[in-house]
Amino acid sequence: MSDSTLASMSPALAVSTVVFSLMPSDSTGRMALHIPLVRRIREPYRGRWALPGGPLAADEDLADAARRHLVTTTALSPTYLEQLYAFGARGRSLAERVVSIVYWALVSRANAADDATTALVQSDPNVCWFDADDLPELAFDHRTIVDYALWRLRTKMEYSRIAHAFIGDTFTLAGLREVHEAVLGRELDPANFRRMVESSDSVVPTGEFLTGTPHRPPRLYRYNHAVDLVDPNPLGRT
Amino acid sequence: MSDSTLASMSPALAVSTVVFSLMPSDSTGRMALHIPLVRRIREPYRGRWALPGGPLAADEDLADAARRHLVTTTALSPTYLEQLYAFGARGRSLAERVVSIVYWALVSRANAADDATTALVQSDPNVCWFDADDLPELAFDHRTIVDYALWRLRTKMEYSRIAHAFIGDTFTLAGLREVHEAVLGRELDPANFRRMVESSDSVVPTGEFLTGTPHRPPRLYRYNHAVDLVDPNPLGRT
Repeated sequence: MSDSTLASMSPALAVSTVVFSLMPSDSTGRMALHIPLVRRIREPYRGRWALPGGPLAADEDLADAARRHLVTTTALSPTYLEQLYAFGARGRSLAERVVSIVYWALVSRANAADDATTALVQSDPNVCWFDADDLPELAFDHRTIVDYALWRLRTKMEYSRIAHAFIGDTFTLAGLREVHEAVLGRELDPANFRRMVESSDSVVPTGEFLTGTPHRPPRLYRYNHAVDLVDPNPLGRT
Repeated sequence: MSDSTLASMSPALAVSTVVFSLMPSDSTGRMALHIPLVRRIREPYRGRWALPGGPLAADEDLADAARRHLVTTTALSPTYLEQLYAFGARGRSLAERVVSIVYWALVSRANAADDATTALVQSDPNVCWFDADDLPELAFDHRTIVDYALWRLRTKMEYSRIAHAFIGDTFTLAGLREVHEAVLGRELDPANFRRMVESSDSVVPTGEFLTGTPHRPPRLYRYNHAVDLVDPNPLGRT
C-alpha cells in the first residue's frame, strides 16, 4: 500500500459533506431538514447544485478537510460530524476519475440562523439552503449521496442521541418532538411520543421549567447519559 | 471536486480488506474467527503482517478492487463484502501519505477450506490465516482497522442475517449457534439460543432433517426472507 508509484496511479481524492440543519419550511412554516448546496461555476455540470467539498490538503486529516470545506461554504461549525461512505464508481464525475470520501454533519438551529451564515448566504448567490425533501437536480452522483445520508440520519434517530445535535442541552418534550418530526418528515402523535420517550429512559427531567411562556410552563429535560445507547463505535467521535 | 489539479495534489489511494472466515482454532479445536494477513516484503514495516490490499486501478470500482486483492491474496471470493471506512490520518503510513478505503468481507467455511486456498497458503509463506483474537503485531494502523471491523461484524450479528454468509442455505440450530459462538468469541447456552432464534422469526424450519448423523437427526432451518431485518441500506449490497 505504500508503493512509491501509488500516487501517480491513483484517482483524484475529494472530501464532501452532506450538512443537515433544521429551518422553517418556506411552504409550511414548520421546521424541516435543510441542506446547503453550492452552484458549480465550471464544467462538468456547470450551473448545477452540488455538495460542498473539495480536495484533501497534504497535511490535513479527512474530518478536518470536511470541516474546512463546511466552514468555507457555510460559515458553520458542525455539532456532529461522521464519515458516511466513500463513493468511487467509474464515470461518476464525467471528467477525470474522482473518489469522494463523504461526511455528514449536523448544525444546530442556533448556529444555522446566526448572522454570519445569513450574511454569507446572502452575499454569495452560489450558496443556498434547500429543503432536503425538495432538492433541485444535483451534479455528479450527489443525489444518491444525499439519499444515503438521509437514510443514515433517519435510521440513527431511532437508536441514538443524534437529535441532541439539533437542540440545546435542555429542551421540552414538544421541542424534542419537533426535531423528530422535522427529521422524519411526518407528524408524530404527542401522547405516543411522550410515552415512547419516557419508557426509553433516554431523557430525564432536569427539575426546571421553560420560562417566558404563557400558561403552565413546560418541564425541561436533558439526555440521560447513564443510559448506554447503541452506538459505541470504537473509532470514537470527531 | 473535479479541478484538473486535484490528482496531483491528492494523497495516494489504496483499497484494503479485512477478511473473516471460520476455521478450527489451533488451541481449542473449536471454530473461531480467522483473518488472512500478508507479510510485508518491503519498507515501511518490512516483515510485519498487514491486511491484503493495494492500489485502485484506473478502470476499477472500489468494491472490485477489494475483491481483486482478496482473490489475489487468498484465492477466495467473498460471500459478503461491505465498505467499512476510509482511513486517512496523517502519518499512518510513515512514508508517503496514503488514504485506505477499507472493506470487510466474509468467506464461508466451505470456500476457506477448499483445495485452492490450502495450496495457495501453503505455497506462499507470506500469506497466513490468524485467529482474530490472537493476532501478531500489525503494520500501519491495521490493528485499529481490524478492531473496528470486528466491532462492525459483532454488532451486525445481532440484527441482520450476516451469519448466513458463513453457512449454507440450510442449517441446524446447533450449526447456527456454532457460527454465533465463533463470531462472538464465547459460548452460548443452547436452550437460550434456541428460544432467542425461535422467538425472532428470523429462521424457519425447512421440514427436512440433517442426514448421515447417528441418533435422532436434527431439524434443518433456513433464513426467513419474509421478515424484514434492519438493514435496508439504500446503496444496496455488492
